[in-house]
Amino acid sequence: MPIASTMQDRPLLISGILEHGRRIYPDSRVITVGADGAVESTYAQVAARAAQLAHALRGVGVVEGDRVATFCWNHQAHLEAYLGVSAMGAVMHTLNIRLFPGQLAFCVNHAEDKVILIDASLIPLLGKVASELTTVEHVVVVGGDGECGPAALAPLEAIPGATIHRYEAFLEGHPSTYDWPELDERAAASMAYTSGTTGDPKGVVYSHRSTCLHALGICLGSVAALTERDRVLSVVPMFHANAWGLAYAAWWCGADHLLPGPFLQPEPLVRAIERHRPTVAGAVPSIWTGVLHYCSAQGADLSSFRLVLCGGSAVPESLMRRFEEELGVHIVQAWGMTETSPVGTVARAPRGVSEAESWSYRVSQGRVVQGVEMRVVADDGAALPWDGQSVGELEIRGPWVTGRYYRVEAPERFDDGWLRTGDVGTIDARGYVRITDRSKDVIKSGGEWISSVDLENALMGHPDVFEAAVIGVHDAKWEERPLACVVAAEGKEPTPASMRAFLSDKVARWWLPERWTFVDEIPKTSVGKFDKKLLRERYEAGALDVVEVATG
Amino acid sequence: MPIASTMQDRPLLISGILEHGRRIYPDSRVITVGADGAVESTYAQVAARAAQLAHALRGVGVVEGDRVATFCWNHQAHLEAYLGVSAMGAVMHTLNIRLFPGQLAFCVNHAEDKVILIDASLIPLLGKVASELTTVEHVVVVGGDGECGPAALAPLEAIPGATIHRYEAFLEGHPSTYDWPELDERAAASMAYTSGTTGDPKGVVYSHRSTCLHALGICLGSVAALTERDRVLSVVPMFHANAWGLAYAAWWCGADHLLPGPFLQPEPLVRAIERHRPTVAGAVPSIWTGVLHYCSAQGADLSSFRLVLCGGSAVPESLMRRFEEELGVHIVQAWGMTETSPVGTVARAPRGVSEAESWSYRVSQGRVVQGVEMRVVADDGAALPWDGQSVGELEIRGPWVTGRYYRVEAPERFDDGWLRTGDVGTIDARGYVRITDRSKDVIKSGGEWISSVDLENALMGHPDVFEAAVIGVHDAKWEERPLACVVAAEGKEPTPASMRAFLSDKVARWWLPERWTFVDEIPKTSVGKFDKKLLRERYEAGALDVVEVATG
Repeated sequence: MPIASTMQDRPLLISGILEHGRRIYPDSRVITVGADGAVESTYAQVAARAAQLAHALRGVGVVEGDRVATFCWNHQAHLEAYLGVSAMGAVMHTLNIRLFPGQLAFCVNHAEDKVILIDASLIPLLGKVASELTTVEHVVVVGGDGECGPAALAPLEAIPGATIHRYEAFLEGHPSTYDWPELDERAAASMAYTSGTTGDPKGVVYSHRSTCLHALGICLGSVAALTERDRVLSVVPMFHANAWGLAYAAWWCGADHLLPGPFLQPEPLVRAIERHRPTVAGAVPSIWTGVLHYCSAQGADLSSFRLVLCGGSAVPESLMRRFEEELGVHIVQAWGMTETSPVGTVARAPRGVSEAESWSYRVSQGRVVQGVEMRVVADDGAALPWDGQSVGELEIRGPWVTGRYYRVEAPERFDDGWLRTGDVGTIDARGYVRITDRSKDVIKSGGEWISSVDLENALMGHPDVFEAAVIGVHDAKWEERPLACVVAAEGKEPTPASMRAFLSDKVARWWLPERWTFVDEIPKTSVGKFDKKLLRERYEAGALDVVEVATG
Repeated sequence: MPIASTMQDRPLLISGILEHGRRIYPDSRVITVGADGAVESTYAQVAARAAQLAHALRGVGVVEGDRVATFCWNHQAHLEAYLGVSAMGAVMHTLNIRLFPGQLAFCVNHAEDKVILIDASLIPLLGKVASELTTVEHVVVVGGDGECGPAALAPLEAIPGATIHRYEAFLEGHPSTYDWPELDERAAASMAYTSGTTGDPKGVVYSHRSTCLHALGICLGSVAALTERDRVLSVVPMFHANAWGLAYAAWWCGADHLLPGPFLQPEPLVRAIERHRPTVAGAVPSIWTGVLHYCSAQGADLSSFRLVLCGGSAVPESLMRRFEEELGVHIVQAWGMTETSPVGTVARAPRGVSEAESWSYRVSQGRVVQGVEMRVVADDGAALPWDGQSVGELEIRGPWVTGRYYRVEAPERFDDGWLRTGDVGTIDARGYVRITDRSKDVIKSGGEWISSVDLENALMGHPDVFEAAVIGVHDAKWEERPLACVVAAEGKEPTPASMRAFLSDKVARWWLPERWTFVDEIPKTSVGKFDKKLLRERYEAGALDVVEVATG
């Protein structure tokens, strides 16, 4: 006869993360970079303010399940919302400040946000769509108390029926502890919208369970091995994919948080790193590319880092090598998406390989984190072998992976309980995932696949190339051929011939692009990825100046 | 209106741990120390055998929820059972080979074990109670194929109605993969009985959920930070408290397992460490005390260790210091119990303290692991402040803490959803737990508490003392006074006067024992803890030779 477990049925809750940090690490720090120096608070202070925020929200009628949005940079108040809003049972909705106005209004209305916490400096952005917002009852303005007078608040008055508050006044007088409700761990804790290049943004709703398990995942020895001895710099925005879970993970283990506010340019970032000496950081490749170029020119001390996490798009090997050689900083690539909380894989080299061999693993997307599973499937849906050769779409499942989108049917994105990632690639015998393309960016030339990502990464290794994107364009003979869109490094003039020569020992000969175009910058999506859809549109509209080299 | 999370509802299952190790780390190793050298297998091989075991068990009628017991040392087949039995949905019951015969029969019958996997060398132990076992249908004998003939198996034939198998033959011919069932994560996965010194053993039934969460806990940066680069030596028996979760945790992250079989004496342990170079180990203090004395006498290279976990009873500071100074090995104390899976707290020093200050934290029981909570309560049940001063019983709750015992009422052990640990102590403002006594070992002298554990640890720092236990005995004037029971170091003759002088700057003057007795060894319970109940009985029976020193 089967028997029952005797274990306690304690739920995994964000209030548990909050209280653990408050009780065990009261002296750990949350440091926000500001225009006039940093603001530093203790966990005890931040936890007290998170409780005050919860009381204040309850005071204006927020109940369990209500959506409370944030429209903020990375700073202490945003962290207070991360902790307090979810712990009280409301659902924190991080609005991406880089959305186009129409998308922004769509997200607020679709999520039915009742409250928005907004940075004073971002009021003009929200102001553009204020009159279109249909569900917002309260707007709480963070910061800007000194310079931000009634005129600055005016755009918010166009939100129908909304009351406007100041964050500090909103918190004032409320108790500094809160009797957090014992929620179902599967209850909604937070939500975010993905910003695809087609259609309306789609919502993902994280649960307390998924958030806690993902945060444990980040703290694992094989992922970031976070402890209270760390100081974690989240450059990755808290309005994007949970800031990779770093906010929760760092708080849970008592690490210091270093939050850069809006100061994401290389110079202030490097200054903050030198001054506050973080041990761990997370950001997309374009941030680190900027930091590298700044450090090369100016010199800098980045020696406090033991680990730099990089993801969001493929990390060029040249970037990783130069960070290691020139700055002594170890970059570890991770892969994930909003739909996966986001961390799905981490690219640490396996044991037992030489330094030289390790690079082929470090430039892959890596291996799945304990707790999630991946597979690679053929067009007919059959699971393909883990042989490093069989190319197909990558699928993922696990307790921090979404199983659907919020209030919209998208059956094409799911496959028998697995999320289709939209990424195409291989998995090898050790479980290393290698993404060769987004499924929509695949280039099929004469019936064979060319990896735009591999071409881009190889090109970005050229000393005279700052950035490069490769798209597939129509070709009379081969159906599709690659077009290389290149941004020259400052003061440099790379030629197609020199770049083809540079590529010739790095990729198959038939991959070498014949078509080249030089652009001032690669257009980016709202989350900083190459916007290849826009590049294709520009190409088709004849807006790109294409050089075709003769090949023989 | 509240909204639902969109996250996948994927269960946390031991089959997930098994498959992750199999797919991602097929080349990691499981090394078992043997009399004739070590046996080394890959994860791929062990996973295949775990699947074969599951098929074989199903073949003899084992279904989901059935109990499959193990009566084994730490070795590869035991690990195969850890993984395969639970993954198939059966419940692995680890029988403690150090139980008294009556307790052993009680545990098998109370758990209704259907199958027992037993080491050939342990047949005589089970044989003593064979005729009393009422539920066992199959016994599978592990190892001993060479020397263990029919005569050696004979004691098992006294088990009514049981069929006897050989492990290798039992596995042979079965498929090497298994379509693991998708279980409820709260289903029973394994069970263990606590071996208190009073009453029948009490069962704790772990769930898949509790096992997975606990294993994630062990892998955290702040706990053991395990990765595939580790090689984990589990001296702590797999028949006791899940081997501290090391078997699951190490497998999940791909670390090598080094399993010592029955070779737990200092000499073979040190040889195995020197030969196989583990990076992490777990064992009770008495094991490490033996290793230290052996190494002091013989010399040894323990430099492969980056971390030695020690727990099960309080770890003497002198042991930790000598390991660090003489062997260069860092011991970290952890605290837990069978009821807590077992790891509850880990004693790493907080950041920002000097090396000298760090010791007062390292000799504490440490801070709770992310995910569990502790509190200290007064006799009247009120929660006491975390001030490092207020003494009360420690209580714990969390998803890997038991909420009851298996089929026995024990309301006195639970308090409004919290497990009473039976340990008495304090918690300080940084969450450090300090256990001063088992509640039943508390010494109350003139209305004030004396910590027997502190006295013991201080005494064991005396160079001429090998081991020491302190119990409370009746005193006409003070009601109770401490009696120190001392085992002299080899060739040494410590005197009460020298030991009192040694203690005088380490504990309060009124704690100094007047009563002393010298014994050949401190009696231990079946899990290696000081058996103070037996010491008290011997004292009361007049069987101890007590010296009383005059004080003035």
